[in-house]
Amino acid sequence: VALGAVLLHAACAGAPETSAPEVNAPADIAAINALRDGFAKAYEAGDAAAFANLYTPDAISQPNHEPTVTGRDAVIEMHKNTFSQFAMKLEIMPDETRTMGNTGFDRGRYRMTVTPKAGGPAITNEGRYTVMLEKGDDGAWRVSRDIDNSTMPMPAPGAAPQ
Amino acid sequence: VALGAVLLHAACAGAPETSAPEVNAPADIAAINALRDGFAKAYEAGDAAAFANLYTPDAISQPNHEPTVTGRDAVIEMHKNTFSQFAMKLEIMPDETRTMGNTGFDRGRYRMTVTPKAGGPAITNEGRYTVMLEKGDDGAWRVSRDIDNSTMPMPAPGAAPQ
Repeated sequence: VALGAVLLHAACAGAPETSAPEVNAPADIAAINALRDGFAKAYEAGDAAAFANLYTPDAISQPNHEPTVTGRDAVIEMHKNTFSQFAMKLEIMPDETRTMGNTGFDRGRYRMTVTPKAGGPAITNEGRYTVMLEKGDDGAWRVSRDIDNSTMPMPAPGAAPQ
Repeated sequence: VALGAVLLHAACAGAPETSAPEVNAPADIAAINALRDGFAKAYEAGDAAAFANLYTPDAISQPNHEPTVTGRDAVIEMHKNTFSQFAMKLEIMPDETRTMGNTGFDRGRYRMTVTPKAGGPAITNEGRYTVMLEKGDDGAWRVSRDIDNSTMPMPAPGAAPQ
């Protein structure tokens, strides 16, 4: 029996590392909820530097009607540029958050109001987003990929301004 | 030792079911490549019924500047409506395909040309897509969520038609 115990230990020792990854662990979902809140707060505060804590170093951001932005530094730069011109209100309504081990995704809707700092009318946009998420070696969840679009009709070229 | 072997067998018997899910298994990636090809072919053939094989029953489709479409039947209906009005050319350029067990995602770029069947100029759109994927009990991969957007500038309201 002693030898059996040794064999058993040897055979199963690796099990915790190779066992099924946790799915939708409450601590992971809570961390992603906090990440999402941080995202909206960074927008409303116009705090581009905050995005360093929200995105992975190799993140790829794919904003609607804009070129793809590759890397966390470029994501910060993009937001710096936006925040210098606009004050933002951002509401995020999550519809689905799933994790498996150290990866996951979050999907939902947003409502954004953009007010030009130079004056002029505020513009509201509504739509959906999907972000891919990664849990780093430090245990923190970050956005690795994002994409958004709009549920509002595309303005027809030549349409009268509203 | 015999008893040890029995214990070992008993302790580890459940391992295959609870072990780590396969990541990026070549057969899964190949199946997703075929799914993507089927998607483009269905567009070019104007074959709305083909989407029944491409989407999960509870799929959620989130086309840019359109309302969210919930359920495979509604996805088929949407495409039926589109294909009745437009001939489509669709090129899909995948950038990233990942699977873990029975879930995965595919992310990339597309170029689409839409020609009104009633006449008038063709319109080309370019952008990105992200789809969430699920492998069913039948072993087939299907799209469970999709979202796309455009890399082309948003037409300004009141801009001259191009």
